[in-house]
Amino acid sequence: MSPNQADPGREARSLAKGRLEALTDGVFAIAITLLVIEIPVPSVEPGESLARAILDQWPSYGAYTVTFFLVGAYWVNHHRMFTLLKGVNHTFLLLNVVFLMAIAIIPFPNALLAEYTLELQLRSVAAAVYGLAMLALAILFNVVWWYAGGRGRLMRDDCDDAKVRKVLNSYLIGPILYLTGVILALVQPIASLVLYFLIPLGYLVEGPVKDIAQGYLETDA
Amino acid sequence: MSPNQADPGREARSLAKGRLEALTDGVFAIAITLLVIEIPVPSVEPGESLARAILDQWPSYGAYTVTFFLVGAYWVNHHRMFTLLKGVNHTFLLLNVVFLMAIAIIPFPNALLAEYTLELQLRSVAAAVYGLAMLALAILFNVVWWYAGGRGRLMRDDCDDAKVRKVLNSYLIGPILYLTGVILALVQPIASLVLYFLIPLGYLVEGPVKDIAQGYLETDA
Amino acid sequence: MSPNQADPGREARSLAKGRLEALTDGVFAIAITLLVIEIPVPSVEPGESLARAILDQWPSYGAYTVTFFLVGAYWVNHHRMFTLLKGVNHTFLLLNVVFLMAIAIIPFPNALLAEYTLELQLRSVAAAVYGLAMLALAILFNVVWWYAGGRGRLMRDDCDDAKVRKVLNSYLIGPILYLTGVILALVQPIASLVLYFLIPLGYLVEGPVKDIAQGYLETDA
Amino acid sequence: MSPNQADPGREARSLAKGRLEALTDGVFAIAITLLVIEIPVPSVEPGESLARAILDQWPSYGAYTVTFFLVGAYWVNHHRMFTLLKGVNHTFLLLNVVFLMAIAIIPFPNALLAEYTLELQLRSVAAAVYGLAMLALAILFNVVWWYAGGRGRLMRDDCDDAKVRKVLNSYLIGPILYLTGVILALVQPIASLVLYFLIPLGYLVEGPVKDIAQGYLETDA
Repeated sequence: MSPNQADPGREARSLAKGRLEALTDGVFAIAITLLVIEIPVPSVEPGESLARAILDQWPSYGAYTVTFFLVGAYWVNHHRMFTLLKGVNHTFLLLNVVFLMAIAIIPFPNALLAEYTLELQLRSVAAAVYGLAMLALAILFNVVWWYAGGRGRLMRDDCDDAKVRKVLNSYLIGPILYLTGVILALVQPIASLVLYFLIPLGYLVEGPVKDIAQGYLETDA
Repeated sequence: MSPNQADPGREARSLAKGRLEALTDGVFAIAITLLVIEIPVPSVEPGESLARAILDQWPSYGAYTVTFFLVGAYWVNHHRMFTLLKGVNHTFLLLNVVFLMAIAIIPFPNALLAEYTLELQLRSVAAAVYGLAMLALAILFNVVWWYAGGRGRLMRDDCDDAKVRKVLNSYLIGPILYLTGVILALVQPIASLVLYFLIPLGYLVEGPVKDIAQGYLETDA
Repeated sequence: MSPNQADPGREARSLAKGRLEALTDGVFAIAITLLVIEIPVPSVEPGESLARAILDQWPSYGAYTVTFFLVGAYWVNHHRMFTLLKGVNHTFLLLNVVFLMAIAIIPFPNALLAEYTLELQLRSVAAAVYGLAMLALAILFNVVWWYAGGRGRLMRDDCDDAKVRKVLNSYLIGPILYLTGVILALVQPIASLVLYFLIPLGYLVEGPVKDIAQGYLETDA
Repeated sequence: MSPNQADPGREARSLAKGRLEALTDGVFAIAITLLVIEIPVPSVEPGESLARAILDQWPSYGAYTVTFFLVGAYWVNHHRMFTLLKGVNHTFLLLNVVFLMAIAIIPFPNALLAEYTLELQLRSVAAAVYGLAMLALAILFNVVWWYAGGRGRLMRDDCDDAKVRKVLNSYLIGPILYLTGVILALVQPIASLVLYFLIPLGYLVEGPVKDIAQGYLETDA
């Protein structure tokens, strides 16, 4: 009798985790790739410069880059935390669906930001709405992983609780940063855009999750 | 001689199940993520409030949320039932393709609902069409799983027939609820919208499938 | 020393096959789900009937249904043939990329058909172009699988050559049927539309591939 | 004690590699399939020829074909190099995210090229921008794989370093060819379009990666 037959739940749990990862990766990949739809092909009048018209759309490329990094940073972190999971349960599934709802809507605030960055009157509102969407996302990300890791309830038995807690604590900075961005947007929208660019960069390049996941991810030196 | 060589069909069946899950997850992920395309970036005249224009689009966000939960609820339930399958056959493949056809069209009734919720004259029709699309989906979901589980024909041998039957019975409520929604839409469209919101919520939070799948999904306490 | 270490190529071949299936399933899933984008939300003037406007778009729903079945039928058949492969090589990868190019373009002829079905003067052209796209697809499908199965070169060793040949022969009917459709479109476009609907239905419900794959796919009776 | 328990990192590394492949395949599949959205359904005035209007859109089909081959060629090469990896690390994840950003934006230069190929005044700019986007992509592809293979740091232990180096050297031609394309576009745009078509064709049909991967990919003769 093989171990799998003895414990049919083990295989099913892996499947459950595997399929949730598949749906999650799918939503991330699609949301990230749909961003390009928001970049319009400029139409030029006779005698106008196409090169100039393309360059004038720089807020579209800027929003694309910032948002792509942001979704990429979430994907990298989500994916690392997933490697520490031993399985998923009903509540985790639900929380993940709500989190994906916030990921999948990202092309909307992204398009809003691209559209109104050049309009002095309106860019405060666009930058604030973008920040609110990212604030909601950051909060949901915390909810998902504090639920999974908070009491160590879904983490692998070989995970170091103290390290997991350290990573979770580091995620708490996200909502604070985006809340700052929203407030900044109302006063000094350009400063908020710079902040929006720096946040995912920071999470991509540095962060405690890098250390905890290192043992699992790094190749042998 | 390895077990796989002795029974080449076993591996192929798993592959078949695996790829069907891949296609299914793909269609779910894309349909759910395409919903955002229906949320337009509002265009404002000089002097108008962008914040106001964004808020005025609340039916788009409402439809997005309700439909996202609905697709999410179907995904969670579809995925759980799948963990109980031992394999798939030709008819099951076909039924699943037809079911996916009803999933993939969802962005259309969703956009219709978002567009016409604020128009008194027309929202009855939009809400009824939305309900009809969801009714068709609920019926197809029942057809797929009554076929697979009805006579236990595709379920794993270690599944409890009585429990499977209980879950299947619970799914029969779906079509009845959406039929109610369609009728309600013609009389009292706002009430039907509330119902559309409550149905997926109910299936996500509670339901017999939770119990039967528990043994397979929950992590060890 | 494990068998995998002794034969590193075996694992790599499976990976290669697995990832090709992933890309293939992705393109199928996206192409099939993008079809819905072509169904517009009708705009109605005050006093007009929304229900009527929705019904008047029936060619869009018709094209959606026919094309969804068609892509679904190709997916089912592609997927079955894949279960018979022992691995893939460079040429197979290339042929598959060209085949996917024909799958991914399907939303275009589909939209063309939906747009012009109601216009007496123009539907001949639209139906002929749709048929030509499907003819190209059918030919490419034959090229892919005659290459893989023609001399049995990529098929599993436990495959019955005579059965594979029988399935391959059955696929030759596809191009002939679509060529008939193209010619019919120029004379009697409605008849060609009926034919386009019947072809995938035929491949889904019946066909020799069902028999050969049965041993691998069907669950134990 | 099973090997997996003894080395929990091994499974996690495979998962990490597997999920990165999943995200990568997802982005490739979606970017490649979104190209079709750029092909518009032509609208014709009464009395005009629909066939003619469809044919007049040839730059759209041309751009679709060239770009599809290009993305396909990148996918085949990316996928092959992946089969040689023993695992991924943090930096590789980041580089891959940046590379995917360049893949996901491809529908934009593709649409630009399709739109302006027929306009004598403007096609130079469109062809140059297309070339610049492909130049950036080629450079990023080199960065990703020179990082992974340059010092053999992420390659499987059974990889022949000299062969890997040979493949990496062959990739250096890509940026040079696209730089040539950009310069050519400003002088002789049609010649640059021909070059854009030939480059992916060359990488698909021939190239050293074919030889090195052969041992892993080819089926037994």
